[in-house]
Amino acid sequence: MNYQEVVQNAKKNIGPNCKVCPSCNGIACKGVIPGPGGKGSGIGFIRNYQAFRNYGLNMDTLHEVKTPNPQIELMGKLFKLPVFAAPVGAVQMHYSDLYDDLSYSTALVDGCHSAGIVAFTGDGVKSEVFEGTADAIKAQGGFGVPTIKPWRKEEIIEKIRIAEAANALAIAMDIDAAGLAILAAQGKPVSPMSTETLKEIIASTDKPFIVKGIMTVNAAKKAAEAGAYAIIISNHGGRVLDETPSTLEMLSEIVAAVGNQTIVMLDGGVRTGLDVFKALALGAKAVLVARPFVTAVYGGDREGVSLYVNQLEAELKEAMLMTGCATLADITLDKIRKL
Amino acid sequence: MNYQEVVQNAKKNIGPNCKVCPSCNGIACKGVIPGPGGKGSGIGFIRNYQAFRNYGLNMDTLHEVKTPNPQIELMGKLFKLPVFAAPVGAVQMHYSDLYDDLSYSTALVDGCHSAGIVAFTGDGVKSEVFEGTADAIKAQGGFGVPTIKPWRKEEIIEKIRIAEAANALAIAMDIDAAGLAILAAQGKPVSPMSTETLKEIIASTDKPFIVKGIMTVNAAKKAAEAGAYAIIISNHGGRVLDETPSTLEMLSEIVAAVGNQTIVMLDGGVRTGLDVFKALALGAKAVLVARPFVTAVYGGDREGVSLYVNQLEAELKEAMLMTGCATLADITLDKIRKL
Amino acid sequence: MNYQEVVQNAKKNIGPNCKVCPSCNGIACKGVIPGPGGKGSGIGFIRNYQAFRNYGLNMDTLHEVKTPNPQIELMGKLFKLPVFAAPVGAVQMHYSDLYDDLSYSTALVDGCHSAGIVAFTGDGVKSEVFEGTADAIKAQGGFGVPTIKPWRKEEIIEKIRIAEAANALAIAMDIDAAGLAILAAQGKPVSPMSTETLKEIIASTDKPFIVKGIMTVNAAKKAAEAGAYAIIISNHGGRVLDETPSTLEMLSEIVAAVGNQTIVMLDGGVRTGLDVFKALALGAKAVLVARPFVTAVYGGDREGVSLYVNQLEAELKEAMLMTGCATLADITLDKIRKL
Amino acid sequence: MNYQEVVQNAKKNIGPNCKVCPSCNGIACKGVIPGPGGKGSGIGFIRNYQAFRNYGLNMDTLHEVKTPNPQIELMGKLFKLPVFAAPVGAVQMHYSDLYDDLSYSTALVDGCHSAGIVAFTGDGVKSEVFEGTADAIKAQGGFGVPTIKPWRKEEIIEKIRIAEAANALAIAMDIDAAGLAILAAQGKPVSPMSTETLKEIIASTDKPFIVKGIMTVNAAKKAAEAGAYAIIISNHGGRVLDETPSTLEMLSEIVAAVGNQTIVMLDGGVRTGLDVFKALALGAKAVLVARPFVTAVYGGDREGVSLYVNQLEAELKEAMLMTGCATLADITLDKIRKL
Repeated sequence: MNYQEVVQNAKKNIGPNCKVCPSCNGIACKGVIPGPGGKGSGIGFIRNYQAFRNYGLNMDTLHEVKTPNPQIELMGKLFKLPVFAAPVGAVQMHYSDLYDDLSYSTALVDGCHSAGIVAFTGDGVKSEVFEGTADAIKAQGGFGVPTIKPWRKEEIIEKIRIAEAANALAIAMDIDAAGLAILAAQGKPVSPMSTETLKEIIASTDKPFIVKGIMTVNAAKKAAEAGAYAIIISNHGGRVLDETPSTLEMLSEIVAAVGNQTIVMLDGGVRTGLDVFKALALGAKAVLVARPFVTAVYGGDREGVSLYVNQLEAELKEAMLMTGCATLADITLDKIRKL
Repeated sequence: MNYQEVVQNAKKNIGPNCKVCPSCNGIACKGVIPGPGGKGSGIGFIRNYQAFRNYGLNMDTLHEVKTPNPQIELMGKLFKLPVFAAPVGAVQMHYSDLYDDLSYSTALVDGCHSAGIVAFTGDGVKSEVFEGTADAIKAQGGFGVPTIKPWRKEEIIEKIRIAEAANALAIAMDIDAAGLAILAAQGKPVSPMSTETLKEIIASTDKPFIVKGIMTVNAAKKAAEAGAYAIIISNHGGRVLDETPSTLEMLSEIVAAVGNQTIVMLDGGVRTGLDVFKALALGAKAVLVARPFVTAVYGGDREGVSLYVNQLEAELKEAMLMTGCATLADITLDKIRKL
Repeated sequence: MNYQEVVQNAKKNIGPNCKVCPSCNGIACKGVIPGPGGKGSGIGFIRNYQAFRNYGLNMDTLHEVKTPNPQIELMGKLFKLPVFAAPVGAVQMHYSDLYDDLSYSTALVDGCHSAGIVAFTGDGVKSEVFEGTADAIKAQGGFGVPTIKPWRKEEIIEKIRIAEAANALAIAMDIDAAGLAILAAQGKPVSPMSTETLKEIIASTDKPFIVKGIMTVNAAKKAAEAGAYAIIISNHGGRVLDETPSTLEMLSEIVAAVGNQTIVMLDGGVRTGLDVFKALALGAKAVLVARPFVTAVYGGDREGVSLYVNQLEAELKEAMLMTGCATLADITLDKIRKL
Repeated sequence: MNYQEVVQNAKKNIGPNCKVCPSCNGIACKGVIPGPGGKGSGIGFIRNYQAFRNYGLNMDTLHEVKTPNPQIELMGKLFKLPVFAAPVGAVQMHYSDLYDDLSYSTALVDGCHSAGIVAFTGDGVKSEVFEGTADAIKAQGGFGVPTIKPWRKEEIIEKIRIAEAANALAIAMDIDAAGLAILAAQGKPVSPMSTETLKEIIASTDKPFIVKGIMTVNAAKKAAEAGAYAIIISNHGGRVLDETPSTLEMLSEIVAAVGNQTIVMLDGGVRTGLDVFKALALGAKAVLVARPFVTAVYGGDREGVSLYVNQLEAELKEAMLMTGCATLADITLDKIRKL
């Protein structure tokens, strides 16, 4: 199988809502929920993708770099690339029956681990999903990051215990899921939380704790103050609130504010190794990729994941070679250009 | 009935000129008069809508707000939302025979009152419309704001007396109707008026007097000087003069100039609770919504109005929850982002 | 006949190259020469039109103006509007056989004079056109402005004598025709000219001399120094050089440089009375309109011209009413807004 | 034959990948490789073309220039125009079998020499192409610039010897080909190179040495320091790295940095004489044109090349005439306008 075959398979398997577009840019699916679209006007997703188009790479081949190294050490482990698979949930509803949340997460966790990176996995109203995913992570030696929704504090801490038992590398919480009224309707309310509550949650575990869903400098400061190991700038793919800015546009100022206190990652609109390069140049330590991994799993299961990761690696290495970056630390702001 | 059914009904009932577009943005109907379009190129309407697209919401769920309160006190009353239905006239001509101006206004006044907000109602060449509407407002305990055209001063004051007799909460005048040559052709000329004349008109009543159709800082100052209880930034939906700027773009500087002397409201392009949020963040105390209420009435009469108001409320509360605003006073400039 | 009928007639009569578009904006005909298009990419024409879209009108109806007066005194005469018909040549080639250059110019001169404005008329390789047009102007008491191409100086002065004999109000020269290689190919070369030569040409007549085709501050200064009664900012409708800026964009700086030495007029993209208003607000004393008068003549001959002039007048007066301008002198920069 | 016939012939001959678009702007062929497209999103090619659209020409015909002279002296020779044909390789693969690399380069070298300019020629994995092209250049008295890929230093110097033997006017190297992984796959790896290596290469010959593929100020400084006779700002038509900026946008700052040490040329998006004019106004001494010469050769062989060069000359002279530039030195920044 090659990556083009993964894409062709995905078109057959992924269900009617996702068109597996040549560029996964949020336009064909705007407002398509159930489905992969952004909420309402869909502009939060579209902006994420478009924001990357505002930057170009400063090509320069007069240098001595010949074999760039895109490896990164995070959470005490060495990864092949500064890229993680993002959590995606309710895949049966949004895509097709070929996978359910457990089989999807398991394929993603396994595939990412084999490919040298790590998957974040999701959470749901039914406890089986979180627990089953934890089993899959445990089976991979803990190579996975379970992501908990902002339930009541006690529920969150219960789930942290499950993640610890799986020996997960880290634990995440997507705090921007606080607006998902559908969860309350199913008897499992979520809500915003105070810095104090977040601090207690983070203090309840020795695992690195990652706060996903930061979109302002203020929220970044609160998460850093609460002790987050890392924060992820994310607008949840434009799916929890319409008309948010893009994530990339928030990156520089958030890094300026908290970059020396916590690790800043970026989620939203990353599709290629060139996008990874741009996010790092603007200050992110690593990025998350969501929708393209759905294509990879539906189109090629574990092998699809590997093929996509390999493609990202090849693209990132090419970008580093063509700009003279030997390591990720060389990917600095002067390597890109605001257009 | 739900709101989607209201929309479906409206498509059947509303006549050939309005397409009940997914986004009511002035494009499909540009220049369509009779009909809902903006005049000439239609750009005044289109710009109103587009201006809102220039702002994003600063999502932040690290806070303690769980049940935002969007209520507002104005004209001595408490309203569910900082939203009013705007006056719309000649509905038979612009939409369809299902309603005439009196039945439309009556449905709107009743529906808004039930839903916890208030409707502005219109005026016309024939005196029956204004008088009939006043009766409808009286029947709702005065919950309505009759809007008088800029006729000769004596005629205006006569109509003020009718509105007072109906015990209307407030009285408005849409001064930007001064350019409607069609009224002169029907024997009832309108015209611009001096600050002095406006002052005399306002002084003739104890009711709060609202001046609608302000588009410049200078006009705002004149209206404030004349004693206006509130002003409404409005370009009449782009229907009295082609090629005006959008209303939203004028908001900040007008608030800066007269915000401490009079209440500043915004009309034009408001479609969702997120738009309400943005207008308030930019300094408006409240907003008016026009065309979507035509859809609501033609698609569901009083119930349609309630369903649309409920949707606006849900959207506004969600926006407040996802940005950490407990009350309308918390919706400040830092809660949105110029994109 | 009304103006809509003029437009309908024009669609039948005007030939295959002009589509009589709802907005005459240079897009459908870009590069269509023979025909009305801009040269090459056609962008010079398109930009002229688009430049007007960058400005809005500052509506304000709190004032005492009720009957605006758009009259202007120029060349010692009082005109109904600050609008002139621009010279258009080779109408048989670019449009259709319904008119030739002489019958077109005659209709335009007569129609404009009746309507209270004045037409500029064109020049050509064959001397009959210029001479015949001069006769038509003479028959209208001199109400016309013959426009001479930048031939050799002696030829220009010969044509000035013809124009003087016709008692023309003024004489113009379109110096930007210097690039029309087709004229040299027909044995009548044109060329750029020095300030000194221009000075001699202007000094050769007592008539007001108008230099058309200015696109830079430097050229404006040279024309003013040479004694031009007025200059016309024009890129020849984008037909002599591809990829020029729009004329409107050059207006402010040219007025700032020479506005106290000579009269500055603007040609290019003016379609409505609102466009006239914008050009005046940006500093022009008057404007020229070209292509819409072709529609007017082909669709309604002299009556078509009158109907179009009346429409421009109504639009300009409405714009003045809705912004509080009693006379043209009130149309100042603060009456419009850069969008 | 005229140029329009060349274009018509090219449409028949050029193969399925190139559409011979009215404007060769990279849109129809984006990502089409094999074919003429930019790599990946194709935006590097598209941006090159679009960047020229951001500038207008400052038309001014009040001056004394009547016969502009666009000649230039470079590499010790006088050329008709400041335009060179750029190297294009693998024409069989990207276009059609009508030509192979040797017959294409030979036609281009001969056609350009006859037309008064010079062609750059390409390199390939097989040594026959470079050697055969060198023969063609020798047959034209050295009027050609062989362009060597960034192979290992020893291989480069071997090819320099071949070029010297052909008495080539100058020798070039396209250093941005360093990312072409396909060459390594064929056993002939290319790579970035240090300033030191470049210096040794340049020092190995007495011929003027031109470094093509500069996209940053830093790279320009390194090339100048290494002794380059000239540098060519180029992103390889967007074909070696996706998402680079346009070349034109880099021009001013590179000229400011190294313009007094080396000759700066520009490649990318130049299609017409007006584009040549703009590039010179922004500081380039000369430009390269690539894809339009493919059309010229496939559509008319040597005669096609001549016709295209003649058209460029006519356009450039017209632009000079209409802006008052007697020689290339007069084409200064004030002759264009940023739009």
